[in-house]
Amino acid sequence: MSIAATPKPPYYAAIFSSVRTEGDDDAYGAMGEAMAGLAMQQPGFLGFEFSADTPERFSLFISYWKKDSDIKRWKQIGEHLEAQRNGKERWYGAYRIRIAKVERDYGRD
Amino acid sequence: MSIAATPKPPYYAAIFSSVRTEGDDDAYGAMGEAMAGLAMQQPGFLGFEFSADTPERFSLFISYWKKDSDIKRWKQIGEHLEAQRNGKERWYGAYRIRIAKVERDYGRD
Repeated sequence: MSIAATPKPPYYAAIFSSVRTEGDDDAYGAMGEAMAGLAMQQPGFLGFEFSADTPERFSLFISYWKKDSDIKRWKQIGEHLEAQRNGKERWYGAYRIRIAKVERDYGRD
Repeated sequence: MSIAATPKPPYYAAIFSSVRTEGDDDAYGAMGEAMAGLAMQQPGFLGFEFSADTPERFSLFISYWKKDSDIKRWKQIGEHLEAQRNGKERWYGAYRIRIAKVERDYGRD
């Protein structure tokens, strides 16, 4: 994983914070990879960053998008809806999704 | 780590993405804990979430704040300025900080 090469702000971030339940790591990993691959093909997708704390089962997944409407469209894609359903039923205990407008950024590449 | 108990939007997020250089993990951990403890005492602080992918040395640290001006003030605190300097010189290769306004959120606690 490396830092997403996002354009000059403004753009949008979907911050997905989750605590995993126990078990079935292989199927979860496959689902995650499939969803990341699918997200990359969506209009307005800019990049993503992911980090998982294995012992604590806490993870952060941030996807970056040109516009809020890109995030709303992505939320309604059929395979993504199924992944969301599986997520709620099988993979996640607590989770939160925050939609945020990136107003400024700085750093070093 | 658990999901930050943030209030109803709008509020602000400071998303800090970084790739660590090699070495000196103990001193880095101590600095991180000191800065997290100090951030918690600042006006407008709402909570934070952190996840580190150990083999890849990639990590995400998100702090949540009431207002953008709270983030600007925190950036200028003396001990934090020193940590930022150390970060640039010793701990981080690439890094990026994105300041974003959380417009909406949903999830399950």
